[in-house]
Amino acid sequence: MVKEVISSKDNTRIKNYRKLHTAKGRKKSNQFLIEGVHLVEEAVNYKQPVDTIIIEDGFKHDLNIDHFKVLYVSNDVMKSLSTLDTPPGIAAVVNQQAPGKITYNRVLLLEDVQDPGNLGTLIRTADAFGFKTVIVTPESADPYNPKVLRGAQGSHFHLNMLQRGALEAAESFKGIKIGTSLDDAVYIDDFNKPDGDIMLVLGNEGRGLTERTKQLMDINAKISMPGMSESLNVAIAGAILMHHFKS
Amino acid sequence: MVKEVISSKDNTRIKNYRKLHTAKGRKKSNQFLIEGVHLVEEAVNYKQPVDTIIIEDGFKHDLNIDHFKVLYVSNDVMKSLSTLDTPPGIAAVVNQQAPGKITYNRVLLLEDVQDPGNLGTLIRTADAFGFKTVIVTPESADPYNPKVLRGAQGSHFHLNMLQRGALEAAESFKGIKIGTSLDDAVYIDDFNKPDGDIMLVLGNEGRGLTERTKQLMDINAKISMPGMSESLNVAIAGAILMHHFKS
Repeated sequence: MVKEVISSKDNTRIKNYRKLHTAKGRKKSNQFLIEGVHLVEEAVNYKQPVDTIIIEDGFKHDLNIDHFKVLYVSNDVMKSLSTLDTPPGIAAVVNQQAPGKITYNRVLLLEDVQDPGNLGTLIRTADAFGFKTVIVTPESADPYNPKVLRGAQGSHFHLNMLQRGALEAAESFKGIKIGTSLDDAVYIDDFNKPDGDIMLVLGNEGRGLTERTKQLMDINAKISMPGMSESLNVAIAGAILMHHFKS
Repeated sequence: MVKEVISSKDNTRIKNYRKLHTAKGRKKSNQFLIEGVHLVEEAVNYKQPVDTIIIEDGFKHDLNIDHFKVLYVSNDVMKSLSTLDTPPGIAAVVNQQAPGKITYNRVLLLEDVQDPGNLGTLIRTADAFGFKTVIVTPESADPYNPKVLRGAQGSHFHLNMLQRGALEAAESFKGIKIGTSLDDAVYIDDFNKPDGDIMLVLGNEGRGLTERTKQLMDINAKISMPGMSESLNVAIAGAILMHHFKS
């Protein structure tokens, strides 16, 4: 069997895959693009609905991908598909799927977190501390943005990722809702981990939680900062709080 | 008095300032470039040796900079000087200075942390938790790289920033040295904050601490991760540890 290698950047499939670089393109096809051996391996291991694996001709790997549709492409085509300065030689197109059974033991709700780097790191950290459901609002960065996927290092595939409005998500949650507004907040050093289900709610980088979401919180947690910096990056604050309230 | 506005990108001073975008240029002149109202304000408030404040003609601000040398530039010149897609209208050239009195109560030692985003976040977080001395090795990202300065949001000006080899720094430290190797590490949940001076040591993103540095640690701290992610970003791990061992 002769291996076919696509060498034209104008190939229709390649053009369609490039549309996955944008939120609009991802929404239209309900697919997203992952890059690099680690992410492709995680997608395969965690039985994600991988549509096609794309491999640069000559790229060596030891993934078991016998059961997948594989497309070989030239270096130029891979460069055109990649969002990285140095394309990693392997990528995959994955179908988005509805989440499976959702668990509510530890939920992270992100209201309008806008930096893809922060969002990716928060998803990865949630996965480390047993926050198995991550809800992002429609005004947040797109969780299937390539930069978010890269930062999360495959944690998307371990979690229930939901997109929902903050009010709907908070109102429907039955356990204790912990906000991060500084109003009447309790230092976590004095805040024992409550029994039962916990939803931790983090807000936008600049503005924090919206007033309407603040109203729905049961309690606010804050972090003692004996130094001179007045604030923490949202991914840093989120990590310290998730570690404290971990499952 | 007529205000002079530099409108040529080829102006000698402007060309020299652009050299501050590179580590080589910063080393040669012993200066660095900061951008944006917040960083310029922090530099002024914390009495940094500001050489020149650069303002785009027409940019409005309410900083008290009467006692500083100010250079007005055109929009084009500011764009050429800026490392940002959207130049913030104000920048400054600051002289590097030798650190003042160094305190050893809480020291953060960063061995070869290479991502400027991670380094900036670690410096900002150290500042929040009272780690007043931050030592970076020569193989780390340059702490005066514009991206590091931006991520640290002015924390450079609150801290003692030192560049030193990891062995020299660890060997000369008299308090307890806490490493982050997983060998014989203790979960921080079971690790009470020791009395006395603490040095926390974090390693490179890919490889962690070097063997030689590991040998010098008194104890290793680790973070319990009940979820599925196998590791944390170095800035996230560092933040959780600095919060635990804060002053």
